[in-house]
Amino acid sequence: MTDALSPVSLVGAGPGDPELLTIKALRLLGEADVVVYDRLVSEEVLALIPSGATRIFAGKVARHHHMPQPEINELLVGLARSGRKVVRLKGGDPFVFGRGGEEAERLAESGVPFEIVPGVTSASGCSAYAGIPLTHRGLAHGVRYVAGHTQDGEIIELNWASLADPDTTLVVYMGRTNVRQLSDQLIAHGLSAETPAAAILNGTRRDQRTLVTTLRLLADQLEALGLAVPTLLVIGRVVSLAEVLAWYVPESADGDSETRNAP
Amino acid sequence: MTDALSPVSLVGAGPGDPELLTIKALRLLGEADVVVYDRLVSEEVLALIPSGATRIFAGKVARHHHMPQPEINELLVGLARSGRKVVRLKGGDPFVFGRGGEEAERLAESGVPFEIVPGVTSASGCSAYAGIPLTHRGLAHGVRYVAGHTQDGEIIELNWASLADPDTTLVVYMGRTNVRQLSDQLIAHGLSAETPAAAILNGTRRDQRTLVTTLRLLADQLEALGLAVPTLLVIGRVVSLAEVLAWYVPESADGDSETRNAP
Repeated sequence: MTDALSPVSLVGAGPGDPELLTIKALRLLGEADVVVYDRLVSEEVLALIPSGATRIFAGKVARHHHMPQPEINELLVGLARSGRKVVRLKGGDPFVFGRGGEEAERLAESGVPFEIVPGVTSASGCSAYAGIPLTHRGLAHGVRYVAGHTQDGEIIELNWASLADPDTTLVVYMGRTNVRQLSDQLIAHGLSAETPAAAILNGTRRDQRTLVTTLRLLADQLEALGLAVPTLLVIGRVVSLAEVLAWYVPESADGDSETRNAP
Repeated sequence: MTDALSPVSLVGAGPGDPELLTIKALRLLGEADVVVYDRLVSEEVLALIPSGATRIFAGKVARHHHMPQPEINELLVGLARSGRKVVRLKGGDPFVFGRGGEEAERLAESGVPFEIVPGVTSASGCSAYAGIPLTHRGLAHGVRYVAGHTQDGEIIELNWASLADPDTTLVVYMGRTNVRQLSDQLIAHGLSAETPAAAILNGTRRDQRTLVTTLRLLADQLEALGLAVPTLLVIGRVVSLAEVLAWYVPESADGDSETRNAP
């Protein structure tokens, strides 16, 4: 019977704007019997799940695990074996800080077929909507992504000397908690304190906020905002382009929708 | 009149599989009067352009520029000013080695409104379809993207010591031409020659081919394949997972369609 099972689809939901879902993700959601989703999947994306499908929240909040990873892995195996069409929906891309590899490994071990559906990463989505190219001639010839903390909320032991590279854009996922240690370490290892730095909060969503500052001021200004929402940090010369290239105008705080910037 | 112009949409077409287009990209293609596209956009994506829209090829082949970047920039400004709805369609994501930032800068300078539509990067798409997580617990706590050559085909001056990091997955765009220099340099700077390495050719497309080998053998084996097609290199421990996680079965060489691997 095993070979009659539908593959479990590990699907990237993108950064938040539901129009940034892929066509494949939208099709698979429409076919799903059950959707297991994370905290980072936006409400507007969840609204695309058919009313007849079962939703299971497996979200994780830093320092507060709703469902431990091994439990999620077993849940996916069990649901698939029950013969249901399972979509595992993750914010961003399942293979970029999404732990999709761990889930896929467990499915493979269990003989459950699966497929990986890549999504627009938070790095690409948030930087696009903030007007920050991740690479740009003369400013950055590469980009790197790191996570600001481990699953347990601890700062990751990083090679700071290597990260403090003015020619490479640095994107930090989950960078909010340890933003001060992070910027202190980068400066201590030689990255200029005046390096442009941005924090993108609720990126690509209607309530996106972008803070553009310097590495020196990033921690203070981010703390002053006081918003505990999904945050992506972007550090590097390319951030200076946001001043000219920021095109996306989110809804203003009073709920009015503003139009896109016109010349 | 300027403020009546439609914004130019700089749109990521993703890595090739047309189902990996975003919903937004598909909508904008359907609304376009003119689509300016690159060589890396797949035929199947181009097939989604409405028959009434004008197509302009602005593709670049390494060492052989079909249309210099400044000319593309002026083309976009001119088309937008003529009142047409312009989509600038780029392989992957416009802000990751896509030169979208340069085009956006020129549009901004000219007072032409624009928007950036992020796409599934080649890195995410190709690695997903090859079964290679870009980050994975215990194997890679981050990922970085570099380009294997400049616009002129020269190898980029990279900080090799920083790149030779066993804890970070290295993804090389346009890495084919200089693959031997690249792997030699990484090994010379301390990265183990036995580090798992992959080349993904025509990633996410029906004729995808994945070469999984070691850093030592990468250049020889890639040259032996002899295929001059879009190629992404992935170097790092995570490549070892492809053996277990490769789920995508492209069409075989004789044109038969194979089904997904079942246990």
